[in-house]
Amino acid sequence: MNPGDRVRVDRADRTYEGVLLPSSTDDQLVVKLEGGYNVGVDRGEADVEVLAEDVYRIDGTDAAGDDGASEIEFDDDLPTISLISTGGTIASTVDYRTGAVTAQFDAEDVLRAVPDLAGRANYRGRVVANILSENMEPSIWRDLAQAVREEIEAGADGVVVMHGTDTMQYSASALAFMLETPVPIVFTGSQRSADRPSSDNVMNAVSAVEAAKSDCAEVMVCMHATESDDRCALHRGTRVRKNHTSRRDAFETVGAEPLGEVEYETETVEFRRAYQERGASELELRDDLEGDVELLKFTPGMDPAFLDVVEGSEGLIIEGTGLGHVHTDLIPRIEELIENGTTVVMTSQCLEGRVCDRVYDTGRDLLEAGVVEAGDTLPGTAKVKLMWALANSDDVAEAMGTSLAGEIQERSVPWE
Amino acid sequence: MNPGDRVRVDRADRTYEGVLLPSSTDDQLVVKLEGGYNVGVDRGEADVEVLAEDVYRIDGTDAAGDDGASEIEFDDDLPTISLISTGGTIASTVDYRTGAVTAQFDAEDVLRAVPDLAGRANYRGRVVANILSENMEPSIWRDLAQAVREEIEAGADGVVVMHGTDTMQYSASALAFMLETPVPIVFTGSQRSADRPSSDNVMNAVSAVEAAKSDCAEVMVCMHATESDDRCALHRGTRVRKNHTSRRDAFETVGAEPLGEVEYETETVEFRRAYQERGASELELRDDLEGDVELLKFTPGMDPAFLDVVEGSEGLIIEGTGLGHVHTDLIPRIEELIENGTTVVMTSQCLEGRVCDRVYDTGRDLLEAGVVEAGDTLPGTAKVKLMWALANSDDVAEAMGTSLAGEIQERSVPWE
Repeated sequence: MNPGDRVRVDRADRTYEGVLLPSSTDDQLVVKLEGGYNVGVDRGEADVEVLAEDVYRIDGTDAAGDDGASEIEFDDDLPTISLISTGGTIASTVDYRTGAVTAQFDAEDVLRAVPDLAGRANYRGRVVANILSENMEPSIWRDLAQAVREEIEAGADGVVVMHGTDTMQYSASALAFMLETPVPIVFTGSQRSADRPSSDNVMNAVSAVEAAKSDCAEVMVCMHATESDDRCALHRGTRVRKNHTSRRDAFETVGAEPLGEVEYETETVEFRRAYQERGASELELRDDLEGDVELLKFTPGMDPAFLDVVEGSEGLIIEGTGLGHVHTDLIPRIEELIENGTTVVMTSQCLEGRVCDRVYDTGRDLLEAGVVEAGDTLPGTAKVKLMWALANSDDVAEAMGTSLAGEIQERSVPWE
Repeated sequence: MNPGDRVRVDRADRTYEGVLLPSSTDDQLVVKLEGGYNVGVDRGEADVEVLAEDVYRIDGTDAAGDDGASEIEFDDDLPTISLISTGGTIASTVDYRTGAVTAQFDAEDVLRAVPDLAGRANYRGRVVANILSENMEPSIWRDLAQAVREEIEAGADGVVVMHGTDTMQYSASALAFMLETPVPIVFTGSQRSADRPSSDNVMNAVSAVEAAKSDCAEVMVCMHATESDDRCALHRGTRVRKNHTSRRDAFETVGAEPLGEVEYETETVEFRRAYQERGASELELRDDLEGDVELLKFTPGMDPAFLDVVEGSEGLIIEGTGLGHVHTDLIPRIEELIENGTTVVMTSQCLEGRVCDRVYDTGRDLLEAGVVEAGDTLPGTAKVKLMWALANSDDVAEAMGTSLAGEIQERSVPWE
């Protein structure tokens, strides 16, 4: 058996049928299933039957011996959009239909997978990862940011990142801090896989390409704005949150209107809020990250031992209650962490509204202990930002209180 | 100096002026400030000056020697509402204006503090705690539940619990699981203290009393429905969440309409959804709680060592991504915890929508490891419920998947 073969794999309690992929270890078989997902199976425990040889193109050639060079001609009148795949439900559409599991795919692969993209742009494509997004890690954010930089340097007028929806908001935040960009960087994904009638993958992909052609040179998330197939919302990457487990319009901008919308039928991109314009920034990558940063959500009865895990860490985001509080018994331990060099940053589990630790005694005690306030930065975004700030900023406390990529909003709700 | 005296306390860097309260330790002075909050000051570090003696009633008598017996006559035509104070911004109104720091306060105290409550009910009052709600602990939930039972047994037709807003949703959930109640139990609080022009304490207190007189025998939260002083929303205790750090209408029912509303001007209580009616249940208290339950929010890059803290614990709530996922590297460790006796329950940081671990491989692996799904139970509510279920249920896994107090909603959003 060889990568590219269609196989049936029997393990103790399950049977998988799909295409054998190249595996990075000798111990594991990796099989791409019908639905587009990959499963890993221990080689020793598996019975494998080859159903058909060499059915899918692996390593740049398909079964017919095509070397994969695009037959689609470059159109000087169209912008060039780079599609970068990281895996997840939307990428599985492309991967499964094309069989492309190599590090690059071309315009032909893209159009075979999503024909509706034809005529909108010249396409470049590359694969940075092929993971379910719950397995996203800071090291892959760096790979992704570097790939985006290379694509922009190679002439892309906009970049679309195909990403699983589970952790899309974290990855979008990471790129927003790592990259100064002269062109749009648009994350999109799919809440329903391509084999389901309600799949949102085509409209999301088309809308993301339109957004990537627009004038807004920010890191955005482009996903369904409503339950209908009428329009996608464009969310600022640092303010977006997956607020529903399954709805197609799960993604929302927290505490504000989205930046803009893409109307599907008319293919119109409209912005409602001020944004960074195309070409306003020079391309710059600052991709260092401090990995040793944790996030802790405080709830009543929390075991203080969770703070011991953070001992010696570089950074800690606390998701406190209300304006930014924890049980007062925890404050001396937090103070100790800070004295030992951990940067401790307060956010709120309320999600909307800014923390303010000057109002109540608990907050004042936290400030006295050296806790840093993150304004209305979302807790997950704050974690990513602290990783970035610890590696790139001379004054981390000041950075956490300053909006670097739209993560802290102008005060929109009067305090009184 | 004695409790009840007005004092000025100078510490190294601050000066406090207020009423001296009885302190539970010899080392600390406790001073109730103008705004209604209490501060503790180390006796050794403080210079104290008595400004006026015996200005506030402490221990049941006021400065005039009144023994505190109510001069307000019982009105047979009015229902009896019990007000229970646990502390926080709203209780500080009552506490400060009356100086009542004893275990009971009476109708006169209540009406002196919030004159708008007059004529609506006969009032009983008691103090269960006097804490900022970030310091709320499971042991106080038990005290509170027992006090509510005693008040209902003593004839209360409804109970209003005055509670700090930071952890109100956790306490409301705790009482919802602990008590079968034949009468309304209404939590209310205040986002702005009484000394601020925008304080919401009077409207919230009045609306909570009206809700406590209503036909809905559930544990509810009654807080501003809008930024205006026009109406309060009535939220089911297990579905409510403080979704803004500072707005007066911070509390929202997640994933549904609130149960009902109280219109302030007309004092009308209206319900929009089905509820448990007054008298439908017999009073029953099951207040055992398993304290050894933790909540962990998964974010990319999370240190697996947080799972070690849970080693040997009775229960763990995971706030996963999307439909209920974590990094697949964590699954073997979670399986080990489960094999060693920890009940591990999955919820979603999306907050809206139910977890479903049958859709993707990661979820199926979690189910195979023995993780229990909590439907669309909010993560904080799930933590409280698991504490309760471990102490009261024969089949904890089944209990976590079943709605016991409205915490799991009927499927309202079609899956396809």
